[in-house]
Amino acid sequence: MEKNIKIYDSTLRDGAQAEGISFSVEDKIKIVKALDELGVSYIEAGNPGSNPKDLEFFERIKSIELNNTKLTAFGSTRRRNIKVQDDANVKSLLLANSPVVAIFGKSWDFHVTDIINTTLEENLNMIKDTLAFFKEKGKEVVYDAEHFFDGYKANPEYAMKTLKTAIDGGADSLVLCDTNGGCMPNEIYEITKLVVNKYKTEVGIHCHNDCGMAVANSVMAVFAGAKQVQGTYIGFGERCGNANLSTVIGNLQVKNDYECINQENLELITDIARKVAEIANVSLDDKEPYVGRAAFTHKGGMHIDGVNKASKSFEHINPEIVGNERRFLMSEVAGRSTILKKIQKVAPNVKKDSPETIQIMDRLKELEHEGYQFEGAESTFELIIRKNLGKYKPFFKLENFKTIGEKPNESGELTAFAMVKVNVDDKIKMAAAEGDGPVNALDKALRQALEVFYPELKKVHLTDYKVRVLDTKEATAAKVRVLISSTDGKHEWSTVGVSTDIINASLIALIDSIEVKLLRELTKKIKAYI
Amino acid sequence: MEKNIKIYDSTLRDGAQAEGISFSVEDKIKIVKALDELGVSYIEAGNPGSNPKDLEFFERIKSIELNNTKLTAFGSTRRRNIKVQDDANVKSLLLANSPVVAIFGKSWDFHVTDIINTTLEENLNMIKDTLAFFKEKGKEVVYDAEHFFDGYKANPEYAMKTLKTAIDGGADSLVLCDTNGGCMPNEIYEITKLVVNKYKTEVGIHCHNDCGMAVANSVMAVFAGAKQVQGTYIGFGERCGNANLSTVIGNLQVKNDYECINQENLELITDIARKVAEIANVSLDDKEPYVGRAAFTHKGGMHIDGVNKASKSFEHINPEIVGNERRFLMSEVAGRSTILKKIQKVAPNVKKDSPETIQIMDRLKELEHEGYQFEGAESTFELIIRKNLGKYKPFFKLENFKTIGEKPNESGELTAFAMVKVNVDDKIKMAAAEGDGPVNALDKALRQALEVFYPELKKVHLTDYKVRVLDTKEATAAKVRVLISSTDGKHEWSTVGVSTDIINASLIALIDSIEVKLLRELTKKIKAYI
Repeated sequence: MEKNIKIYDSTLRDGAQAEGISFSVEDKIKIVKALDELGVSYIEAGNPGSNPKDLEFFERIKSIELNNTKLTAFGSTRRRNIKVQDDANVKSLLLANSPVVAIFGKSWDFHVTDIINTTLEENLNMIKDTLAFFKEKGKEVVYDAEHFFDGYKANPEYAMKTLKTAIDGGADSLVLCDTNGGCMPNEIYEITKLVVNKYKTEVGIHCHNDCGMAVANSVMAVFAGAKQVQGTYIGFGERCGNANLSTVIGNLQVKNDYECINQENLELITDIARKVAEIANVSLDDKEPYVGRAAFTHKGGMHIDGVNKASKSFEHINPEIVGNERRFLMSEVAGRSTILKKIQKVAPNVKKDSPETIQIMDRLKELEHEGYQFEGAESTFELIIRKNLGKYKPFFKLENFKTIGEKPNESGELTAFAMVKVNVDDKIKMAAAEGDGPVNALDKALRQALEVFYPELKKVHLTDYKVRVLDTKEATAAKVRVLISSTDGKHEWSTVGVSTDIINASLIALIDSIEVKLLRELTKKIKAYI
Repeated sequence: MEKNIKIYDSTLRDGAQAEGISFSVEDKIKIVKALDELGVSYIEAGNPGSNPKDLEFFERIKSIELNNTKLTAFGSTRRRNIKVQDDANVKSLLLANSPVVAIFGKSWDFHVTDIINTTLEENLNMIKDTLAFFKEKGKEVVYDAEHFFDGYKANPEYAMKTLKTAIDGGADSLVLCDTNGGCMPNEIYEITKLVVNKYKTEVGIHCHNDCGMAVANSVMAVFAGAKQVQGTYIGFGERCGNANLSTVIGNLQVKNDYECINQENLELITDIARKVAEIANVSLDDKEPYVGRAAFTHKGGMHIDGVNKASKSFEHINPEIVGNERRFLMSEVAGRSTILKKIQKVAPNVKKDSPETIQIMDRLKELEHEGYQFEGAESTFELIIRKNLGKYKPFFKLENFKTIGEKPNESGELTAFAMVKVNVDDKIKMAAAEGDGPVNALDKALRQALEVFYPELKKVHLTDYKVRVLDTKEATAAKVRVLISSTDGKHEWSTVGVSTDIINASLIALIDSIEVKLLRELTKKIKAYI
């Protein structure tokens, strides 16, 4: 189809080149699953030649089935003056065992002669040998023409020759890179068009944001005929970042009728942006196009009035298309229908204008104002609905707790102690534990006390514990949001707590996590009787 | 001159429409002074008709002499079916007493008929009457053609007629607004060019960032002949923000030889971006083009190597031109030469192969393996170098501490207590404090004890506190990395600590932060003697 565009995500490779971004293997797997669900065509997941941790990832990912995405390993052409099969980087790339490899090579004569110190001729050999080698191994080969636009501007003949050489080597696509991010949209358009007109091989675009134009440049390249867009899902990347793919998808698919992902997945783009940010432990910019919390937020009175009359008066698209929502600051109800759907899971008879709906909406707004966020903490959300509907009775009460922390001694022994007192149907149980830090000690003591009453808790353990400091201006007295994921070996669920005290925030999430498990067990038992 | 561009900043008006942004009169005056120093042509400083506080500002600003900038008051055309001199908004605009007024009017037929509910004819009268009124009062009049591009796409004839009417009313410039931020760069270019070719009046551009293209669209409009660019200095604005003028200036003046501000002021653009962010109480995005902390930061080994050979290999411009600086991150991928440069700042005689260099490299690897990361924690890095070179003597010893945490009571009182015992030259001081959580309590107690010996610490406070959980598989017993930023009002520095216990990790970073300050004070004193 004419308007099919392949989205190529490099969050895990080029994105990891950004300051402050570092992914564990576990993080990488979570991001691959999220992007596969969204339906991007390629995920560039690592550079096994430069980072040995990436090989561990490629090993682990083998057991995971992907539905939409082709995993890609990234590396450079062979080094100068050696045989391709002797190149260490090339060998690591093979070990990744991915169906696709992306090979970058030099297009800019200055880089060939002054940075990698070889001849223009040998650079062409390096491109051709390396691509031919991977084609022979049965790989799909993406050729990243590094600095293509700068190269073209300096020496168009040589830059074009590197592309021709890549085609001769067997490249399945030619990706034109604005590696330094310094090009203007009209240059990108014109040079891309020249390449598209000259060669039959699929052309891609890879832009950086050093002029704040990575998205515009990517879109202009597509208008010029590029069929593949490389970037990172929420714009992570070296220096000013890469083209933000969540914005690119919005621009191409919602506004210009291209097809980048399945149409029905468009409404996932906001959730997945938030999930990727959460995994990377960064805050998604509220102003982010399409997916930011403020992207459809109206503050001015005239704008709110206009949007109420007709949303197109001050919104370029309907926020629901991309799974985002309209917000009016200092005004009533936002996103009521979304929340209604969640309420109806617990109480199917509740309607849009029921007092219960309004009461829950008010409570949610209050909690959001306090710093709560329920993305990725659906279980806390469910408990809030139940509490407000009166469909909830706590399984236990934490009567009291104390923690003590001490200066670690030289041998590095555990330094925190916790005592808890719980009440289950007026039966009291106390327990004490030591741990790595007060939260860990409290977690242990609480389980120890509750397992006496609820042996099913023995199977539960935490799989993730994330801390986000809100409102950093207050520094150590700032609010923190703690997100906990728990598992019983079969299911996984997440809960959230907010407080100025990290111990208290953790406890809120911990208690909810235990309540959710007990509620599920009870529901199972009840269902067995009806 | 052909390539003169007027920069029109609306941080104080459109910028204040953003969620979370609100300026006091004092803030506004500070921003006006900063932007005047930079040399923007216009500052749109308020909307006196919709915000009475703005009139106070216009009164206060009269006593301040501006050297480069014309102050502008913003408002709408008169309301329908009344005389212009009877319109309350028009009267408020006059009270502002600014040399320039910006008047916005409707270009999109749908907005005229469906949002402000009047006739297409009356809308033209509203534009003409209002502009003529202000021209008669001797004002320079900027006409903001709201929704011009959407209007042109819907009904080109009517949209053009509104511009002609504005010219007839006496408009000094016609500013084409992409109010909803939904246009593509090629549309902006083509439509702007049509207007530029049709009318002799100066044309301006006003873009929003809903497609992530506000900067690109502004630049394309200039390429099409626009001579005035409206935006906000670091991109604040309704929804996804306005065109970021610090980026626009970089793109036009550094990269395309336009003159937006005096050439010698270019090196101020980074400092002023940071100042505006500081006044607005928001963090400037590290990734911000030209002015962000990471805009010229390199993490990958190959990029660092390339930039060391020739900066243009991975930088589109020299960071010094815009007053920013190059940084190499201390990461797993950073090479020995980067680290050597940092070592040589402390000990200039150490060489690449000195045993000290190798020892420090080994220590860094060890620490990185433990979960340390020195990006953004340059001060901890410096202390490590000093410790390994024997050029370091601690200013104090934390002999002991204890923290106690308790279940919060209903009134939400502070729930943590801390005691510390410090030793400074064998003098012992103990202190106790309560706080929001154990870290906050410890921070307070530690400062209280140390200020007795080092009164210069009184000026120091934390500006940021970040927690990253590493290796989340271990959940509450996982390692945490704490990053702390501190300031003494003049300088800012960052330190890092890693531990399985969040209290301990925080303390490590806190102690380093205090050591750094004391080391700087001592260095100053020594310098005074040599």
